[in-house]
Amino acid sequence: MIPTEVIERKRDGGTLSADDLRAFLQAYLDERVPDYQMSALLMAVYFEGLDRAETDVLVRAMLESGASLDLSRVPGPCIDKHSTGGVGDKVSLALAPLVASSGVYVPMMSGRGLGHTTGTLDKLEAIPGFRTDLGLDEFVDIVARVGCAMIGQTSEIAPLDRRLYALRDVTGTVPAVPLIVASIMSKKLAEDLDGLVLDVKVGDGAFLPDEEDALALARLMVAIGAERGLTTRALVTAMDRPLGIAVGNGLETVEAIACLRGDGPEDLRELVLALAAEMVLLADPGSDGEAAAARVRTALDGGDALEVFARLVEAQGGDPAVVDDPLRLATAPHREEVRSEADGTVVRVMTRRLGEGVVRLGGGRQRVDQAIDPGVGFEVSARPGAEISAGDLIGVVHARDAEDGRAGARLLRESVAIGERGSEAPLRPLISHRIGGDALESV
Amino acid sequence: MIPTEVIERKRDGGTLSADDLRAFLQAYLDERVPDYQMSALLMAVYFEGLDRAETDVLVRAMLESGASLDLSRVPGPCIDKHSTGGVGDKVSLALAPLVASSGVYVPMMSGRGLGHTTGTLDKLEAIPGFRTDLGLDEFVDIVARVGCAMIGQTSEIAPLDRRLYALRDVTGTVPAVPLIVASIMSKKLAEDLDGLVLDVKVGDGAFLPDEEDALALARLMVAIGAERGLTTRALVTAMDRPLGIAVGNGLETVEAIACLRGDGPEDLRELVLALAAEMVLLADPGSDGEAAAARVRTALDGGDALEVFARLVEAQGGDPAVVDDPLRLATAPHREEVRSEADGTVVRVMTRRLGEGVVRLGGGRQRVDQAIDPGVGFEVSARPGAEISAGDLIGVVHARDAEDGRAGARLLRESVAIGERGSEAPLRPLISHRIGGDALESV
Repeated sequence: MIPTEVIERKRDGGTLSADDLRAFLQAYLDERVPDYQMSALLMAVYFEGLDRAETDVLVRAMLESGASLDLSRVPGPCIDKHSTGGVGDKVSLALAPLVASSGVYVPMMSGRGLGHTTGTLDKLEAIPGFRTDLGLDEFVDIVARVGCAMIGQTSEIAPLDRRLYALRDVTGTVPAVPLIVASIMSKKLAEDLDGLVLDVKVGDGAFLPDEEDALALARLMVAIGAERGLTTRALVTAMDRPLGIAVGNGLETVEAIACLRGDGPEDLRELVLALAAEMVLLADPGSDGEAAAARVRTALDGGDALEVFARLVEAQGGDPAVVDDPLRLATAPHREEVRSEADGTVVRVMTRRLGEGVVRLGGGRQRVDQAIDPGVGFEVSARPGAEISAGDLIGVVHARDAEDGRAGARLLRESVAIGERGSEAPLRPLISHRIGGDALESV
Repeated sequence: MIPTEVIERKRDGGTLSADDLRAFLQAYLDERVPDYQMSALLMAVYFEGLDRAETDVLVRAMLESGASLDLSRVPGPCIDKHSTGGVGDKVSLALAPLVASSGVYVPMMSGRGLGHTTGTLDKLEAIPGFRTDLGLDEFVDIVARVGCAMIGQTSEIAPLDRRLYALRDVTGTVPAVPLIVASIMSKKLAEDLDGLVLDVKVGDGAFLPDEEDALALARLMVAIGAERGLTTRALVTAMDRPLGIAVGNGLETVEAIACLRGDGPEDLRELVLALAAEMVLLADPGSDGEAAAARVRTALDGGDALEVFARLVEAQGGDPAVVDDPLRLATAPHREEVRSEADGTVVRVMTRRLGEGVVRLGGGRQRVDQAIDPGVGFEVSARPGAEISAGDLIGVVHARDAEDGRAGARLLRESVAIGERGSEAPLRPLISHRIGGDALESV
């Protein structure tokens, strides 16, 4: 295997043999292929893709580069959820306790925010004392005891993916379907789950804005899961506007807690319930969809899910009083309200731009090693399709100081497009497709 | 300037602002942008190109990253030639002394062989004692005294190009028109010449096999030269078969010496004379093409060029007796004749494959730091279009041992396609276009 020839072959649109691709990846792991050759190959893959067989080789190499999780101590079915990432996506914080309170175990390995999206771990760390750096043993113990636990990817799991992800992140090679698929599926296969539910985002706030790409991603992950014995379902969900109102780590944690109380934005509640029902269905293939939906609705509205969340926070070293007193969460000192200057209809909320705005306020990162401020962000009250009058609240900026507040207010105002009253505001359905399983693809 | 955003912008087909591109290149020089980000950008450029303004920024950054040559001591016009590289291209060795013997100074900075092409420096070093690592002062002295000298790119000239070239070479990003143009023109502009002649190869043995790419390359270089005050002419010449018969460093040096004696293959002689006439014309814009052609033909046939070559060899530490006794050059111990097994017509010689064959015999390199064996290579007697009978010589392999000899013989046999007698052998004209100057583009 001559590295330059492998790069040239992919660059020229060719297919890499399993032997060559495996050898290239192994040489990268052994540091015989340097980062600069790998990043050239990744960019060639961005343009020329990987076919199914090449993607399988990549998934297997990532999986086999590390250890697998041992969940044998957990006394029931283990189901995880993965989201491809979006703006305001605080689903995991409410979903994991909800599913756990419905009798299904959720060993959740999550990520940090990168670029325009925030990450579950950063949201959890807005809770004073909360630790996401548990060892695998402690992690499995908490799953068995509480029903769910949430950690980051450890160095034991898929180290090849960790290295590739860090490299992709700084070389403009993140949004490539086969690379995203391999990264997600290798980690999830290493978790040794009984089932996996994917939340594949589509719209301008998603990593893959186009529906076709999102569908390809979903179908490929479901197929790879099936082939390797991991039953996988995917919901394709809207990211052409933020999910819920809160965008920014601590603000999103507050909103997730509200959801667990039965409050909070309706779209968040609907998506959390739908994903939870899928997870319950996967854990208990004998049940039907309506029964699963009823079961999770009861667990949410009866307060069981909130109780599991409080136990989860406590088990991971956090202050469980945040459940009753969200002001204990990290907050930003400066707030700036933004109001509409005109009458009209909200035609669009520029989702990616708001996500980038959080980075600018200090609440996200451009590089994996940057520290973030969990308190900053936006509350975006304006929803596409809503009628609005001059003086109505568009949203609130939470910033570290007045200068950031003013900059954030400008950005928020520019991110909410207001048209003439009665304008169309084309919006994606919250859940547009369900991939895998019996139901039709388009819902 | 955020490096990842620059990469993403190019990846998405956008145009980089002069400020962003300059800042990215400067950060790379300062080692704030690492190789892995640069190689990702280079691969994106391979797919998405650079426009004229971006190419200008790159040329200028390369040029300004280093020093310029001071040729003020040279008492006459200085003209250089650059070839985009091909198989069997030993033109420089005969051309520089020929032009020098015609009264024009030739300060030639050349390259080493890479991939399937050999390089002028490697051919010169097949001469015992020949040094190509002269300092710039010594180089200019020899130019002034002998009329020509030949060295490699020094670390003083265009260091940004050196670093980029080394990186491109191992990341599959060599064959991109704007990158080739910037690499060549930045070095040539740094030589502070009075004129430049380009030999742009086209055909399967060239880095850019397609005529359209070669023409784009030629036109762009002529335009950039004009804009920066360096009068530039380009000849587009055939590389759909090897130039001459010899392929391999020492063998090519022998053939170049034969050309200087008035012997050797006709195509080599014709191309050397045409390029020499262009260089003489550039040095003396008042003269006409026929006079220039007559002047160089006289210098070649009268033995002046051979005499200058001997003085050049001596000035650069080599053994000038090679001029009369080519056996003093490095040779390979094992020779293997390859003969035709059938009657027919030679329809094609696979040029690139022969070039790669030299690498396999040990006479070329895959990486810039590899040592080479100057004695190995092929003599390819079979020429496209020639009638051939069973038992006729196709060529001779020069190898280090019998095993290499057999492998080389197989490769040579497979590289010469023989069709039915009377088959068509479509061949490019040796010189198909002349770009810049008065004459028509297509000749």
